[in-house]
Amino acid sequence: MRVALLVHETFPERAKTAVGLLRYGDDEVVAVLDRTTAGERVRDHVPDAPDAPIVASMADVSEPVDALVVGVAPIGGDFDETWRPDIRAALERGCDVVAGLHSFLADDDEFARLASEHGCDIRDVRRPPDDLTVADGTAGDVDATVVLTVGTDCSSGKMTTSYELVRAARERGVDAAIVPTGQTAIMIEGWGIAVDRVVSDFAAGAVERMVEKRAADHDLLVVEGQGALAHPAYSGVTTSILHGAAPDRLVCCHAAGREAVHGYEHVPIPPLEEYVALYERVAAPVSPAEVVAGAVNTAALGGRETGERAAGADGTVPEADGTAAEATARAAVEEFGATIDAPATDPVRFGVDPILDAVLEGHL
Amino acid sequence: MRVALLVHETFPERAKTAVGLLRYGDDEVVAVLDRTTAGERVRDHVPDAPDAPIVASMADVSEPVDALVVGVAPIGGDFDETWRPDIRAALERGCDVVAGLHSFLADDDEFARLASEHGCDIRDVRRPPDDLTVADGTAGDVDATVVLTVGTDCSSGKMTTSYELVRAARERGVDAAIVPTGQTAIMIEGWGIAVDRVVSDFAAGAVERMVEKRAADHDLLVVEGQGALAHPAYSGVTTSILHGAAPDRLVCCHAAGREAVHGYEHVPIPPLEEYVALYERVAAPVSPAEVVAGAVNTAALGGRETGERAAGADGTVPEADGTAAEATARAAVEEFGATIDAPATDPVRFGVDPILDAVLEGHL
Repeated sequence: MRVALLVHETFPERAKTAVGLLRYGDDEVVAVLDRTTAGERVRDHVPDAPDAPIVASMADVSEPVDALVVGVAPIGGDFDETWRPDIRAALERGCDVVAGLHSFLADDDEFARLASEHGCDIRDVRRPPDDLTVADGTAGDVDATVVLTVGTDCSSGKMTTSYELVRAARERGVDAAIVPTGQTAIMIEGWGIAVDRVVSDFAAGAVERMVEKRAADHDLLVVEGQGALAHPAYSGVTTSILHGAAPDRLVCCHAAGREAVHGYEHVPIPPLEEYVALYERVAAPVSPAEVVAGAVNTAALGGRETGERAAGADGTVPEADGTAAEATARAAVEEFGATIDAPATDPVRFGVDPILDAVLEGHL
Repeated sequence: MRVALLVHETFPERAKTAVGLLRYGDDEVVAVLDRTTAGERVRDHVPDAPDAPIVASMADVSEPVDALVVGVAPIGGDFDETWRPDIRAALERGCDVVAGLHSFLADDDEFARLASEHGCDIRDVRRPPDDLTVADGTAGDVDATVVLTVGTDCSSGKMTTSYELVRAARERGVDAAIVPTGQTAIMIEGWGIAVDRVVSDFAAGAVERMVEKRAADHDLLVVEGQGALAHPAYSGVTTSILHGAAPDRLVCCHAAGREAVHGYEHVPIPPLEEYVALYERVAAPVSPAEVVAGAVNTAALGGRETGERAAGADGTVPEADGTAAEATARAAVEEFGATIDAPATDPVRFGVDPILDAVLEGHL
């Protein structure tokens, strides 16, 4: 499929979905729509992803496009009216539109009419199935090994770590698969449930259903975590995933240098060793699981672009480049590992192998 | 308002909503519909509530009725088709219908048509407002003292303890109010949000909004808790309330003798001292709060009916009756208090004063 990504004024730092699709998706990205960086190219910002031009609007995309994908995930998931002309233009030329917003584009009168007139689809991937139920508390019974990525905050690397883990496991011959719980992974996988959009009574049940479905076909499941346990707004989602997935092992993701909850600067992130223990304590009564490894996102420490994946596309770890930034990042990884008393790495900068080793040890 | 309560095959043990309305509601209950106990009376089962006849169907209710209230809260909140004839009959005689199910009665084609034909309303109290958002993490800033009832399981006495606390506080001249988070309290109060029915991303935000709204008018808020932190299905709702309400103090409710999660017999309830510590540990990073008192529901130990409130309607505590059951209940209360290292009582059997003292100490 040939797609365009709408990321106005957010690329790449606040366009998590677009960067995830560029890096892990199978679709061909023919253009990125960002009125701020128009004229530049994807490789200027995300060097390890396939390149594409950045343009200001859908009118500047001359190639055929199968779908326009909204690649922004704003807090609250609201639609931004400044996106309307591009979505209108896409539908008018027969493009499908894919979005993961809380507000559903298919419920917009104009968009629904245009889609109908031009024979195209609007896919709101955050729309939950209508037959969800409460959890049975049975996900712990599956035969597959279930790993959950948890975090010390939102945007700490849970999705990236999950994908790097699955890719590396497959390279070692392990039949691994992701359990997608958020919009980006759902777009990449073509299935999944956006747990944060589910009625809260059914959130754990939604995760349980996905784990039980996926476990029948794979040996290792990596459940993509959401939010954080000490997050003032999203902790309920996190807890529902932790108990609904009933994981065997946890991987804790942390953004190096972050000291307060992103967007909630009055809420400090707890001391990391306590935070890891808190995840284990909350998991224990339903399904005991230890944090067996840590993933540190060291992008904020410099030395690489936000989107850069220094580890090669084949999963090999690059030679040390001896820069000061690399040394700082290495120190941050070692400090995190020592603090949580578990192997740690930056899966993007240094490769995911230490995490995979810990995840597989004694399993599979 | 004159109401009938539909509780088929569940009265009183599994008709929490009906018992709550009988005990704490302002409406006059003219009949209870239960095909199992038809012919008996409310006072045979809930001696301390206003009496009413129990009948088999709406056809047996000859008095005028303003509303039929669905007084059952089944797991999953589904509609039971065996209730259809009574709801149909109510609408046909011009009665409003009030329900707190996950599935909305107003969305049922037949019920919607009958309501329209007969000029009556269907009120689905679990339907959330459509303008909810993510939490700002600001509920901790309100001037009112905020108390949250938490539990070691569902159906452990959180709503009852909340109402007893508010009533006793008012008797002491404290301007106290409840923050209703579940269907029964919403029906009693005439406002509120059923947090378990809210999109999980917005659950904490819904609680925060209620606390901030209510805090402007009262000195003491008692937030009605939901679920339990170690519950395999509902822990996300519990965590959202804990962080969204940002309480100053917690009251932990426990059903004496219960050792496994109700309906999840393979999940043991954690050791109680650890459970209390877990609530405090999870609360701490967002808004520190201690468990200052315990509420024990000793009904299962015998000596009183499920619905009985031994403490008088004026809140006075009855004389000890010297029975073996009372001694057993007293011992259970003392054991719970010693285990969690805080004052404890059975608010129904022995009065809520020890909890209120602990809640108010140093505040107000």
